[in-house]
Amino acid sequence: MKTKDFAKLALKYKAIFFDAYGVLKNYKGLIPGIERTFNFLIENNIDYYILTNDASRSPEQLADRYVSRGINAITPDRIISSGMLAREYLQYKVKHGTVAYLGTEDSAHYIETAGLKTISIDKLDLNDLDHISALVFLDDEGFDWKHDVNKVINLLRIKNLSVIVANTDISYPVNKIEIAIAIGGISDMIEEIVGKKFIRFGKPDAQMFMFAYDQILAKGPIRKDEILMVGDTLYSDIMGGNKFGMDTALVLTGNTLPHEAELKIVSSGIIPTYICDSVVIS
Amino acid sequence: MKTKDFAKLALKYKAIFFDAYGVLKNYKGLIPGIERTFNFLIENNIDYYILTNDASRSPEQLADRYVSRGINAITPDRIISSGMLAREYLQYKVKHGTVAYLGTEDSAHYIETAGLKTISIDKLDLNDLDHISALVFLDDEGFDWKHDVNKVINLLRIKNLSVIVANTDISYPVNKIEIAIAIGGISDMIEEIVGKKFIRFGKPDAQMFMFAYDQILAKGPIRKDEILMVGDTLYSDIMGGNKFGMDTALVLTGNTLPHEAELKIVSSGIIPTYICDSVVIS
Amino acid sequence: MKTKDFAKLALKYKAIFFDAYGVLKNYKGLIPGIERTFNFLIENNIDYYILTNDASRSPEQLADRYVSRGINAITPDRIISSGMLAREYLQYKVKHGTVAYLGTEDSAHYIETAGLKTISIDKLDLNDLDHISALVFLDDEGFDWKHDVNKVINLLRIKNLSVIVANTDISYPVNKIEIAIAIGGISDMIEEIVGKKFIRFGKPDAQMFMFAYDQILAKGPIRKDEILMVGDTLYSDIMGGNKFGMDTALVLTGNTLPHEAELKIVSSGIIPTYICDSVVIS
Amino acid sequence: MKTKDFAKLALKYKAIFFDAYGVLKNYKGLIPGIERTFNFLIENNIDYYILTNDASRSPEQLADRYVSRGINAITPDRIISSGMLAREYLQYKVKHGTVAYLGTEDSAHYIETAGLKTISIDKLDLNDLDHISALVFLDDEGFDWKHDVNKVINLLRIKNLSVIVANTDISYPVNKIEIAIAIGGISDMIEEIVGKKFIRFGKPDAQMFMFAYDQILAKGPIRKDEILMVGDTLYSDIMGGNKFGMDTALVLTGNTLPHEAELKIVSSGIIPTYICDSVVIS
Repeated sequence: MKTKDFAKLALKYKAIFFDAYGVLKNYKGLIPGIERTFNFLIENNIDYYILTNDASRSPEQLADRYVSRGINAITPDRIISSGMLAREYLQYKVKHGTVAYLGTEDSAHYIETAGLKTISIDKLDLNDLDHISALVFLDDEGFDWKHDVNKVINLLRIKNLSVIVANTDISYPVNKIEIAIAIGGISDMIEEIVGKKFIRFGKPDAQMFMFAYDQILAKGPIRKDEILMVGDTLYSDIMGGNKFGMDTALVLTGNTLPHEAELKIVSSGIIPTYICDSVVIS
Repeated sequence: MKTKDFAKLALKYKAIFFDAYGVLKNYKGLIPGIERTFNFLIENNIDYYILTNDASRSPEQLADRYVSRGINAITPDRIISSGMLAREYLQYKVKHGTVAYLGTEDSAHYIETAGLKTISIDKLDLNDLDHISALVFLDDEGFDWKHDVNKVINLLRIKNLSVIVANTDISYPVNKIEIAIAIGGISDMIEEIVGKKFIRFGKPDAQMFMFAYDQILAKGPIRKDEILMVGDTLYSDIMGGNKFGMDTALVLTGNTLPHEAELKIVSSGIIPTYICDSVVIS
Repeated sequence: MKTKDFAKLALKYKAIFFDAYGVLKNYKGLIPGIERTFNFLIENNIDYYILTNDASRSPEQLADRYVSRGINAITPDRIISSGMLAREYLQYKVKHGTVAYLGTEDSAHYIETAGLKTISIDKLDLNDLDHISALVFLDDEGFDWKHDVNKVINLLRIKNLSVIVANTDISYPVNKIEIAIAIGGISDMIEEIVGKKFIRFGKPDAQMFMFAYDQILAKGPIRKDEILMVGDTLYSDIMGGNKFGMDTALVLTGNTLPHEAELKIVSSGIIPTYICDSVVIS
Repeated sequence: MKTKDFAKLALKYKAIFFDAYGVLKNYKGLIPGIERTFNFLIENNIDYYILTNDASRSPEQLADRYVSRGINAITPDRIISSGMLAREYLQYKVKHGTVAYLGTEDSAHYIETAGLKTISIDKLDLNDLDHISALVFLDDEGFDWKHDVNKVINLLRIKNLSVIVANTDISYPVNKIEIAIAIGGISDMIEEIVGKKFIRFGKPDAQMFMFAYDQILAKGPIRKDEILMVGDTLYSDIMGGNKFGMDTALVLTGNTLPHEAELKIVSSGIIPTYICDSVVIS
């Protein structure tokens, strides 16, 4: 399996979309040397966005984590999160009432900045649901799993609500070996038990790529095949990017290990345009 | 939809298998008059067994709950639980080592009466797994969902273990309106996330009916179509009974309400031989 | 269940997206009086598009069927089909080589108008696959199911190809009672057997709505909530429209019958903004 | 990965259950030397049965194929097929009427030897269904896929019938590289489209193992862990055997290739008690 040099590849595109975890950072923090990648893009006038399945915090908070570690190039306007799509959905579709949520107060606060009222499942009174207009799954933190997951199931049996899952991932890495269940995994279980259809935001869904594409189009004309999507996960990053019509590059610094990349590509049928060892420029 | 009188129907069979919840009892306790049903069966020399998806306690403890409420006819030898199948599996297949479990101490104690050592997931050391020989899901109670479910996922990433789910149900009723997630629902989520195949015990699987049939065969010859399976749930009780070759009767005192029975039968394609209002004999 | 008058509703929106089958036409042909609906929209300066899961023919051919029956308002530029998305994908992603297909010659011809070479599965030589660059499922007609479906499975075992499904529907109505398996249903079976991931185009996927939205945006600014999506199917039309951020109207002239609408909405959790008896204006 | 010598292993058991395809034979015919295995078993007084997911012909016809190639040890009474379970089910559950089927006349003939009337889907009149009492999927041969699969779907929309799938396999090998869709794969597609629950017979389901175990028990007492299940497929043979409480041996002459055995065991979590290169005795 021959890998491509990322710098040479990048020069062929007008813009690059990056997945965050496994590409720019991992469980130890930023991938060393990643600042050189963004310097290179800026020098060469290549536009860039970060596309991340994350609804646990606002773009401002997500950007802060990069800036505080010395990557000033990643400003809030460069970040497209699945939480932003969920927030936009709620703005368009929930005209009044209160949105019930599973997640942290922080994740709910971001929804509130769109002018929506929120209430945690914990504080919800199942006998007083008239004002509840939607349910949103934001984060796997911030609630008692047993109590609140069972409460959500009964909420959905009592009242027919639109349900939004603000992160499609079913798990996320916590260190080199261990993973944790993400809110997408919990919502899959609940959907199966209540037998209803939930609305999901996040890669590989096209809406995520469209959101980023619309930002970049606003600056001037650009074709989809002038953008490269870079990610470490075949299903969410590469399949999503391919389907949207972009070229795609799989990097081997995260979820897909070098020795298993070829096997995973063959067994999944998800074929990246290129494979790169890393996005770090030497 | 015409329903059959249960007493008349029962007289046509040599033996009757009953589901427990929704047939003999509900969230309020025993269904009133249920003692007359068992008196009738005994008077008419009709054999009977209770088949229940439950691994939370031993047959003795399950029987106690009937006897303490005045149904002396339901003795431990009349009860076939999915926990018994899981216990038998572990006896046959786990020759040495310790069985890790999710559930209450009570549920684990029943496994231990088969001569097996057990350890709760909570007490397990992920750095010392040499002696762990299997993992069993017993009950939705007795553990911290967030901490222990995530720990189970990482256990299965570190060590390749046979996994046994001792109850196929994904939820159970807690009162007239509300339900709770059963251990079967939690294990489905974990199976999806780790991408492995778990071994499941409980209706509608044939092994449950076979276990009961073997008990009854030991007393003398009986054909499968001389037994009636009675249950309130189309998928587990009726489909399971049909597939095993028995006649089946759907009762309307539990999971399948009178006004929705016909629609559910048509939309599922699961067709009971008979429908009865209740097993209570007037 | 109270239904809304479609004419009054339409006046609240700048544009309307229509599903075709079950809304504008059914197994008997055009729904009588449908021409008045389009006259009304034109008179009131309300823009409109037809969004249809169909890859069996070109927009020109699809429009012809309306025009030949007297609906001159439905011109090719008003039609957004899942086949158009598949064609666009292939243009962006397949730079050279030949696209293998399951479907009619007609359906393949539309792909060829994008400058792509195609070959039917029937004519493919499994020993000479070097020039094959993608596989696309276009139509359930035009091939021998047994021979060609088995050949497709072996093609995907021999060569790792991107697979595109140009219509997500699993079935379609052929008369008042009967349905037929659509190419989406066949591709689901093949995907399960080969264990790979296919790329699907069609409602409820966001890309379909985005394609239409981009057309309308090109004429001037319009917000998503100034558009009404009208359809007869909860999953593809209403859930898709909701997720994209539009208001939605379920009509009762097709897949969702008047007496079952409320039950289907409650059991699926897919909630239309409005329900209308029909889009025909009296 | 260390493999065990099959002869030494066999001596530890009172009986051995064999899968057929990939263990005793492959696309080229019988595995060379397989006659020595059966001579060895007979000499050492080890009982044996063949458990095969096949409903295309009777046990007599299945045995003939071995006997005609010189393996006289495999007589009809040694063969347990999923078709036998389906036939037994129909005998118990279909008291009158006609069974509609998809498959060859040969496969239907075997059902008829149980005293049942059958009619092929092709010959069925959808306007005259009163006498039709069940539907059974027997074989992927013997019918026009497009016409008859669509007819089956409409049959199930018009009349609520018990549906039996007499072979759970979704595909089968036709030569070293190619596979073909089995009737189990076709029935999965139909089940998805009609949204009903079908009754399935075949490994890994317990009923298949129970049927063989009952035969062997009739000759004298034997515990489940005194039987070895041998197969080439982790899901159907090994998981099924494990769940039933037997020891299991994976052989590397069929579906699981030597270089992928360990990876498949780890990724599936299905753990055979032993691995053998082959059942052929040198």
